[in-house]
Amino acid sequence: MFPRETKDYINIDPLQTGGRLTDKARKALVEWGDGYSVCDFCITGRLDEIKKPAIYNFVHEQLPRFLGCDVARVTNGAREAKFAVMHSLAKKDGWIVMDSNAHYSSYVAAERAGLNVAMVPNTDYPDFRILPEKFAETIEDTKRKGDVVLALITYPDGNYGNLPEVKRIAEICSEYDVPLLVNGAYAVGRMQVNLKELKADFIVGSGHKSMAASGPVGVLGMKEDWEEIILRKSKKYRNKEIEMLGCTARGATIITLMASFPHVKERVKNWDREVEKARYFASKMEELGIRQLGDKPHNHDLMFFHAENLYEISKRVKKGRFFLYHELKGRKIHGIKPGLTRYFKLSTYGLSYEEIDYVINAFAEILEKYA
Amino acid sequence: MFPRETKDYINIDPLQTGGRLTDKARKALVEWGDGYSVCDFCITGRLDEIKKPAIYNFVHEQLPRFLGCDVARVTNGAREAKFAVMHSLAKKDGWIVMDSNAHYSSYVAAERAGLNVAMVPNTDYPDFRILPEKFAETIEDTKRKGDVVLALITYPDGNYGNLPEVKRIAEICSEYDVPLLVNGAYAVGRMQVNLKELKADFIVGSGHKSMAASGPVGVLGMKEDWEEIILRKSKKYRNKEIEMLGCTARGATIITLMASFPHVKERVKNWDREVEKARYFASKMEELGIRQLGDKPHNHDLMFFHAENLYEISKRVKKGRFFLYHELKGRKIHGIKPGLTRYFKLSTYGLSYEEIDYVINAFAEILEKYA
Repeated sequence: MFPRETKDYINIDPLQTGGRLTDKARKALVEWGDGYSVCDFCITGRLDEIKKPAIYNFVHEQLPRFLGCDVARVTNGAREAKFAVMHSLAKKDGWIVMDSNAHYSSYVAAERAGLNVAMVPNTDYPDFRILPEKFAETIEDTKRKGDVVLALITYPDGNYGNLPEVKRIAEICSEYDVPLLVNGAYAVGRMQVNLKELKADFIVGSGHKSMAASGPVGVLGMKEDWEEIILRKSKKYRNKEIEMLGCTARGATIITLMASFPHVKERVKNWDREVEKARYFASKMEELGIRQLGDKPHNHDLMFFHAENLYEISKRVKKGRFFLYHELKGRKIHGIKPGLTRYFKLSTYGLSYEEIDYVINAFAEILEKYA
Repeated sequence: MFPRETKDYINIDPLQTGGRLTDKARKALVEWGDGYSVCDFCITGRLDEIKKPAIYNFVHEQLPRFLGCDVARVTNGAREAKFAVMHSLAKKDGWIVMDSNAHYSSYVAAERAGLNVAMVPNTDYPDFRILPEKFAETIEDTKRKGDVVLALITYPDGNYGNLPEVKRIAEICSEYDVPLLVNGAYAVGRMQVNLKELKADFIVGSGHKSMAASGPVGVLGMKEDWEEIILRKSKKYRNKEIEMLGCTARGATIITLMASFPHVKERVKNWDREVEKARYFASKMEELGIRQLGDKPHNHDLMFFHAENLYEISKRVKKGRFFLYHELKGRKIHGIKPGLTRYFKLSTYGLSYEEIDYVINAFAEILEKYA
């Protein structure tokens, strides 16, 4: 029942390449799969304070060190962490300023928190970059309309894999006295990210996207100045944090995050090699006439491509715009959305050079087949 | 790494007895453990619309039939479902009326939604019942203070396992034009519960508490009248539901819920046998001088006990109030909180009569040992 077809495929879906479980996480998942298993030895009634398994140490020692923040929590996901921050800071008629490369869930979380949203424009085709000076302009403009309670920058974004200059953006936000949240769903767990170095106020990461965890699970880090506001406690149940609804990832999800963590801490040190691989892949794709958009040279495994040649083929073949999906599937390559040919994103994270060459070859073969 | 000590214990922790995975769920957990695996074939960008694995059918066909509701969603848990409803209905200076046996997370969710909370008192020791007429009185009183946007009844509550007369309470709420949410975290998946029969507006269940799923995961059912309000969509991302932040249980959690569901659908038919077992257990405990509080005869596997005799022992033994915990642990029985002796809750759900007799015998032995 429920066999997973893509299990032995080469996976280039950006959503999935950083979320594959380690062997340790897979074992922990089975061991702790039952409902509320992590609560076996919960004494205080709070997830982050459980000492067996060692959640307390993970949340209060290891995670803050890893994120470079003062205070951390595990959440039900990156979007849930973003909402907790937005909801805590929201005011009537308040505004949030976010980059226009933001993930849809940042926008939806802002809507849920009742915030008006001002978007910082990107530089459009072909780079789609977010420039710090545009952040300044947008905050300036928005301040005239109302209270800007928060700014959000996506680092990197999930379309182009662009890494904006967060430090510079944080300085700008700080000049306007606006706290900055870094959405690092594609950064935390892949590359080294340190909230203090970035000089931002909040950092959010995704367990299932980039920390080799079984979802949904995420992390939230903050400067201690924010602890009292974001982690404010219930008036009646004095140790329960309101925004966490008491406890968040109260199950096997947090265990897989913890089980993979020693590996994740190590793998971020090899980030340069991941960038090298991505650049190698992009250069080979360009040789095939498929253009890589966004930052160039690229600094992340998540890449966006523009393929006029594949698009032209799709207009005249029988399977139409689904031909690429089927051709890749036939070669056991998974991760480009069915129906896309002209513009698509993919990720080379964790792939070997052999696998990368296999994927490149697949594109070459497909182009040749329909030439 | 991370071995789970209590794995082969007899588990009487009410939090855990209904959340043990079925074999199918355990297999599905491993198969779909990787991060965003359920999104392999997501076309529309919404969890509930994924057809492979068959989430669409589960959410839109099977779950509504099971809950007796028009519209259902899978959430990150029961508390997250309650918050979504409260947050959607909240108004400035609005009130929620809830039974005083409510789970702490109901209260905390209301605080998070910015609602004032009015509590319906219970009948206190020894029954702790919630009477429908008290519901009426509390709504009446609260209406004088402001807008009552929602009422909540816990069915059963997580302390005494009492099953209040929801139908009567729903009629009362309806007379006052107040929608009613049934928190069925300990009901849905254990016993048959049907929103339409209960005549309430919302029903919430917990996957990890009572539906043999790996958490955190929950279910939310509602009458169709509420769909537009609770499941309102983003203005910018037209198919994304704001309260769900787009997608909720986007991982292995929903797969385990689905994998266990055929079993869960069957097991609720055997509820009478679970009640019989609970009553048998309670009667044996009373023979030992340990009093069962709450509804009597009891109608649920979750039971609350008052043991003066164990309390007296705790006052004079070396390990003090931890003696009971250690005595039970020595007998591989898990689930009564360390330090409790006078008042404690437990659950007989899913235990065989042999296991129940073993637990009863353990209590008898312990009492005798310290007599």
